[in-house]
Amino acid sequence: MTIARTICLGFIAVISVGTILLLFPITTSDGSWNDPITALFTATSAVCVTGLAVVDTGTHFSFWGQLIILFLIQIGGLGYMTTNTFLLLVIRKKFDLRQKVAIDQSFDRPFLQGSRNLIISIIATSLIFELTGFFLLTNLFSDHDNTIWLALFHSISAWNNAGFSLFSDSLMSYQSSLQANIIFPILIIFGGLGYQAIFEMFMWSKQKFEERVLNKNTEQIIFSLNSKIVSNTTLILLFLGTVAFFLTDFSNARVFGDLPLHERFLGAWFQSVTTRTAGFNSVDISNMTNAGLFITIAFMVIGASPSGTGGGLKTTTLRILINSTISTLKGKTEVIVYERRVPVNLILKAVGVLCASFTLLTTVTALIAITDPNLSFIQILFEVCSAFATVGLSTGITGSLSPLGKLIIIATMYIGRVGILIVINTLVKASPPSLIKYPEENLLVG
Amino acid sequence: MTIARTICLGFIAVISVGTILLLFPITTSDGSWNDPITALFTATSAVCVTGLAVVDTGTHFSFWGQLIILFLIQIGGLGYMTTNTFLLLVIRKKFDLRQKVAIDQSFDRPFLQGSRNLIISIIATSLIFELTGFFLLTNLFSDHDNTIWLALFHSISAWNNAGFSLFSDSLMSYQSSLQANIIFPILIIFGGLGYQAIFEMFMWSKQKFEERVLNKNTEQIIFSLNSKIVSNTTLILLFLGTVAFFLTDFSNARVFGDLPLHERFLGAWFQSVTTRTAGFNSVDISNMTNAGLFITIAFMVIGASPSGTGGGLKTTTLRILINSTISTLKGKTEVIVYERRVPVNLILKAVGVLCASFTLLTTVTALIAITDPNLSFIQILFEVCSAFATVGLSTGITGSLSPLGKLIIIATMYIGRVGILIVINTLVKASPPSLIKYPEENLLVG
Ligand SMILES: [K+]
Ligand SMILES: [K+]
Repeated sequence: MTIARTICLGFIAVISVGTILLLFPITTSDGSWNDPITALFTATSAVCVTGLAVVDTGTHFSFWGQLIILFLIQIGGLGYMTTNTFLLLVIRKKFDLRQKVAIDQSFDRPFLQGSRNLIISIIATSLIFELTGFFLLTNLFSDHDNTIWLALFHSISAWNNAGFSLFSDSLMSYQSSLQANIIFPILIIFGGLGYQAIFEMFMWSKQKFEERVLNKNTEQIIFSLNSKIVSNTTLILLFLGTVAFFLTDFSNARVFGDLPLHERFLGAWFQSVTTRTAGFNSVDISNMTNAGLFITIAFMVIGASPSGTGGGLKTTTLRILINSTISTLKGKTEVIVYERRVPVNLILKAVGVLCASFTLLTTVTALIAITDPNLSFIQILFEVCSAFATVGLSTGITGSLSPLGKLIIIATMYIGRVGILIVINTLVKASPPSLIKYPEENLLVG
Repeated sequence: MTIARTICLGFIAVISVGTILLLFPITTSDGSWNDPITALFTATSAVCVTGLAVVDTGTHFSFWGQLIILFLIQIGGLGYMTTNTFLLLVIRKKFDLRQKVAIDQSFDRPFLQGSRNLIISIIATSLIFELTGFFLLTNLFSDHDNTIWLALFHSISAWNNAGFSLFSDSLMSYQSSLQANIIFPILIIFGGLGYQAIFEMFMWSKQKFEERVLNKNTEQIIFSLNSKIVSNTTLILLFLGTVAFFLTDFSNARVFGDLPLHERFLGAWFQSVTTRTAGFNSVDISNMTNAGLFITIAFMVIGASPSGTGGGLKTTTLRILINSTISTLKGKTEVIVYERRVPVNLILKAVGVLCASFTLLTTVTALIAITDPNLSFIQILFEVCSAFATVGLSTGITGSLSPLGKLIIIATMYIGRVGILIVINTLVKASPPSLIKYPEENLLVG
């Protein structure tokens, strides 16, 4: 079995177990059996850390139902990294070409080759962030009866960028809380950055500490290209998103137009943080202006960083595409990012991710426009992009989708999480590489 | 002055003259002065062969106004090719790197280097198609008073993929006419194919004729990669479009759902032909389903072929992007199309066209969502994509856009026609090419 297939089936297995568990009456607060589509939707949404919900997580599910959801989120969030790493370590065999492609796509991190310690450090990092978040959130939620459970659930959900909330209005009650606007963003941003960037930042901080405070003479930490791109692009996108949302809904009283200026800023900031993959919301999405919704869609599709808990096209893909554009404008034939040349196969992969993603988004949007013709177009496009990029924001239509529409969204969440190229790779039989060297020919483009 | 700048300014000059001419009372049927935005919009739409109209061309403009519009269409349609060719021949100087980039983008057709005869053959081809179309259309329009003028106007408008019609409902009265569903598509498709493909097809037919009928032993015509891609991709897209529109609006009585089956097929076929750049419509666009509108948007953005009279991303760009995706799925590091290797600079150019276009479309859509908040999102997205891809289809909102919205659409039509990379190239000062060779570094994509 190829790695691509293993990843695809692994996710299906976890989702299946989750679906079966969520069917049972013990998982609902009114003790009734869940209908299969609700169970499947919730399990998929949790394992894929998407956060779209057809029912209100906080009221529909019992404590046990919520616990299962939280386990699925944790497995889904950790799984992407550790399962893959584990598979690689266990299987320990030579990979054929087709497997290499799959690994390349799910796992091409030079940094992550080798040791079993890696898995342990990934789990440890997750635990440290989740526990820190938990303690900080107990303070935020101290006026609730079930403070502990709320803090634990939201900390894990935020770190894994899952976007599931036990409040039926997500975090809208905490719109103006400075505390909430700091704790959640930190969990979300670091969770979305990916382990490699976090490790390198940690190593760098440690080295600086040893050098400056302990006066030790240690080796300089050189950031990998991945970490540089991921951290810089994330910062730029966070800034642009804040400005964009601040402007589009500045005077929209149904979002934050009637709040004091600094609270409008907080709302825009939180929306900028959450949109690219987390999926919590501190403002009322369904009342956003078309401009705000459309910019949300654009940011959702861009997504988070690879090897983190987020989805979308990924910041690295975006950066390669932008720098390719700059290269062609300058008449250059190579793509440079931070004084490093980007290999052609990575450019092709970025193009592949983009094209396959747009084809999927277009097809799914058209299909849902057919299955649910009563919905407005922007609601459909929003829902589809949210599902694909495992964001979980919604204009509120998720629960009222037709059964067929729900199944299509389930498939979209799955493909978005596993990775579109990996899914295609599993479905399509690759041909052996050709040894023929074809001549070049010029062509008219654009 | 660079070529890129010459092209940009050339279009502006023609648009300016057209705008001034269209201001005068002699151009309107009621003898009043046109307001500046109407004149500017109409002139830009005509020169850019877009076809979006803020007023009804057939009733608002007098014969003289319509004649000016027709001239602008003819200049705009021919201009792209001949002006460029002419410029190259006249200027006859060495180009610096920056100019080369611009030329590359507007003109990289190995086939079209050299002789002045080329311009003559381009004009001749246009005249032959336009005159043939004219004669055939005199028959179609024979029950009208002004048959000659209608036939001339629509023939030129169709060949140049301009989409301007003198009927206020475009070609909806000819929805079920077999004649209209053959003549218009032939003019539109060949006009959109581009001169190179037409020339090669002509040469090929001539060679086959000489070989089979005259028994001459002539040299085989080898189709260029461009012609192969352009003709095959066009055929595939025509087929897919027909199927898609047939399905999305099959049971939509407000489009063609209440017509006999074969007329529904004709409607879908015409829509498939016209959507990728021509901009006539034989069905009521404003009543299409969301699914139909969205697929129309997708086809509009894909657009026609380079060196033809159409706009959009272009079929060659699409093909390079698709084949890059296939390459990365197969784990290959080079892109092959019809047994020819695609050079890296063309891949980068395709990426550049795609990224720059999507950035523009996103920005403009968000801006119009702000300037015209009362419009539905799909209407805005539809209008913007139609303007950018010089299509000219509309859900009927063009005339009711705010003045600022109209100006934004004018700029979008201009950028879409001139070419986004050329516009950026003119605005941004290119840096001299660097001689530093940077090392490669791996990166996580997707
Ligand atoms: K999420
Ligand atoms: K047009």
